[in-house]
Amino acid sequence: MSSTSMGLQLRSTVKKEGIVEITLARVPTPEPKPEEVVVRIDASPINPSDQGLLFGGADLTTVKASGTADNPVVTASISPAALKALAGRLEQSLPVGNEAAGVVVQAGASPAAQALMGKTVAILGGAMYAQYRCIKAMQCLVLPPGTTPAEGADCFVNPLTALGMVETMRREGHKALVHTAAASNLGQMLNKICIKDKVDLVNIVRRPEHVDLLKRIGATYVCSSASPQFMDDLVEALAASGATVAFDAIGGGRLAGQILGGMETAANRTAKEYSRYGSTPHKQVYIYGGLDRGPTEFHRTFGMAWGVGGWLLTAFLQKIGFEAAQKLRERVAAEIKTTFASTYAKEVSLAEALRIEEIMVYSKQATGEKYLINPNKGAR
Amino acid sequence: MSSTSMGLQLRSTVKKEGIVEITLARVPTPEPKPEEVVVRIDASPINPSDQGLLFGGADLTTVKASGTADNPVVTASISPAALKALAGRLEQSLPVGNEAAGVVVQAGASPAAQALMGKTVAILGGAMYAQYRCIKAMQCLVLPPGTTPAEGADCFVNPLTALGMVETMRREGHKALVHTAAASNLGQMLNKICIKDKVDLVNIVRRPEHVDLLKRIGATYVCSSASPQFMDDLVEALAASGATVAFDAIGGGRLAGQILGGMETAANRTAKEYSRYGSTPHKQVYIYGGLDRGPTEFHRTFGMAWGVGGWLLTAFLQKIGFEAAQKLRERVAAEIKTTFASTYAKEVSLAEALRIEEIMVYSKQATGEKYLINPNKGAR
Repeated sequence: MSSTSMGLQLRSTVKKEGIVEITLARVPTPEPKPEEVVVRIDASPINPSDQGLLFGGADLTTVKASGTADNPVVTASISPAALKALAGRLEQSLPVGNEAAGVVVQAGASPAAQALMGKTVAILGGAMYAQYRCIKAMQCLVLPPGTTPAEGADCFVNPLTALGMVETMRREGHKALVHTAAASNLGQMLNKICIKDKVDLVNIVRRPEHVDLLKRIGATYVCSSASPQFMDDLVEALAASGATVAFDAIGGGRLAGQILGGMETAANRTAKEYSRYGSTPHKQVYIYGGLDRGPTEFHRTFGMAWGVGGWLLTAFLQKIGFEAAQKLRERVAAEIKTTFASTYAKEVSLAEALRIEEIMVYSKQATGEKYLINPNKGAR
Repeated sequence: MSSTSMGLQLRSTVKKEGIVEITLARVPTPEPKPEEVVVRIDASPINPSDQGLLFGGADLTTVKASGTADNPVVTASISPAALKALAGRLEQSLPVGNEAAGVVVQAGASPAAQALMGKTVAILGGAMYAQYRCIKAMQCLVLPPGTTPAEGADCFVNPLTALGMVETMRREGHKALVHTAAASNLGQMLNKICIKDKVDLVNIVRRPEHVDLLKRIGATYVCSSASPQFMDDLVEALAASGATVAFDAIGGGRLAGQILGGMETAANRTAKEYSRYGSTPHKQVYIYGGLDRGPTEFHRTFGMAWGVGGWLLTAFLQKIGFEAAQKLRERVAAEIKTTFASTYAKEVSLAEALRIEEIMVYSKQATGEKYLINPNKGAR
């Protein structure tokens, strides 16, 4: 029996009494079917989009560790309100991790699967916080020679989200876009795409030092919401760029409304006569993240042609269809070391990812504090 | 010179020092061009959509009367925040009143205009709170014989809004709809349309006695937001009807979010497996009014397939095009005494509409307290 036959897999369970429990399970690796391969996961990012499933919206000030160093157990309390929204996952031990990269160590009998043996591939599909992942050969994106798993770990979520934003902007008839939490990995990618594609991008950051960070990589418009001149700066940038669509990672608080208000003020600068229903162009904010889990609040001071709504990568890819989505994926592979390069603050093993001192860092989802899990770190 | 050559016209001016001033001006009636007619306005409703222009968002607890009984002047203070949004109308004396009905008393030389002499017509286009309104003949909707101006005064705003909601529901692929402030004139019309067209409608009212009011006219689903069982009732109605689009007249507060949350709960009842991104069908709330002028606030506990946005009748009519809009108008004229019948609490003259005791009633926009202005009341 090969050494790949069993492996550690991270599991998250929401208990009906209002507790999330995170553990490492030892699970058998499935024998690959003819069209499948087994990938040894060497790198899987902890994206904001993973943390909802991982922590179940628990209050992380209540986090507790138990178990042993090899078999750590982490628990935290979930408020009754948050628990209500989790009815669908109660008492289920769920694997976590959207995307990863690693090396194909076992392959099914089909030529397509066999062709991947030994190749470094990027994969998407959940259950990636594990030593081994069995997956269809056609779901593997082969990385260009010389690409490490760490370099290719984030081939899907951030790159396709950033490309999806620009594509949504074009398809819905806007000429420029706004992005919040703009100094993030994703935000930096979006800047690189927009510079390359000559699309105007208004960056909103939450800390003054992030203005310089983005200016250094070539951003034209960067507004800090911490500045007392924030609204003035924002209106200037919106007027200059003509941006009428925004992608917001924050979700809670007043930012979405401030952006719509800024778009309205910018639009009215060029209006010929007063309209009590506000400016005519449709102004849209898409909320794609929830860095602020508090309520969204806005004063409706931006006329009638506006929308706020959810934006989800998988729904977007489904809408544009396989061929259009494939074009985006191919662009990511081709530019993985340039436009779509990610940086990580730290690489941790599965057991290290369950240490409270690490959770306290990566759960903040702060810019520059992104973690990479290497499930096989120290395991070989 | 005929007696129609001059007439009173209500005017609203927002002064730069933060005051709205409402007065009655004596203005000459324009001589109709060949294609135009002059309508003597006998009935014009005070719709919620008129009150924004009329009061400029002023704080009506500060309202003051001055002038004389014949030449009343009403003033009220506007907060600095509200004033900011009114930059486009500062120091302009604006006429008010979206729609009206009356009798054609003068006609231009063209056959189309001449054919309307003496006819009772409904018209839309602003400046209706006036004794006379000069307008293109083709903009006149001739009312069926035996229809009074009071009966035909609200041929456009409420009827087309109600029809537009059902049409929006159909065009955007929803099978049933939700309406708030559902006991209003508009809400009652919407019930009649939905009963006639066999469309499921979930009515949300704010007072328990409005449940009976709507049940009496045949409504199936009525939920009172004043009830402690409101959310349970709402979820039941949403599950039974399958409604995934709502039209909200309230705007402020938490109702829009409660509706989306209710739709999500209803959708998850039939979901096969847990999805951490929420249910798949798109859930939409259109805010078309602002009975609660406070901020809109919601917790994002309804997955990712959701939207909240503005809905404006004129934008909708423009989008569907002239022919589709004309079909809706023709339906209104044909059913003006049945489906689209309006009731009013009181008929007032222009001067009476400026009395503080009347303003205190109709500015509340309460169900059953709708006013009709007859600009020629007591003037002949």
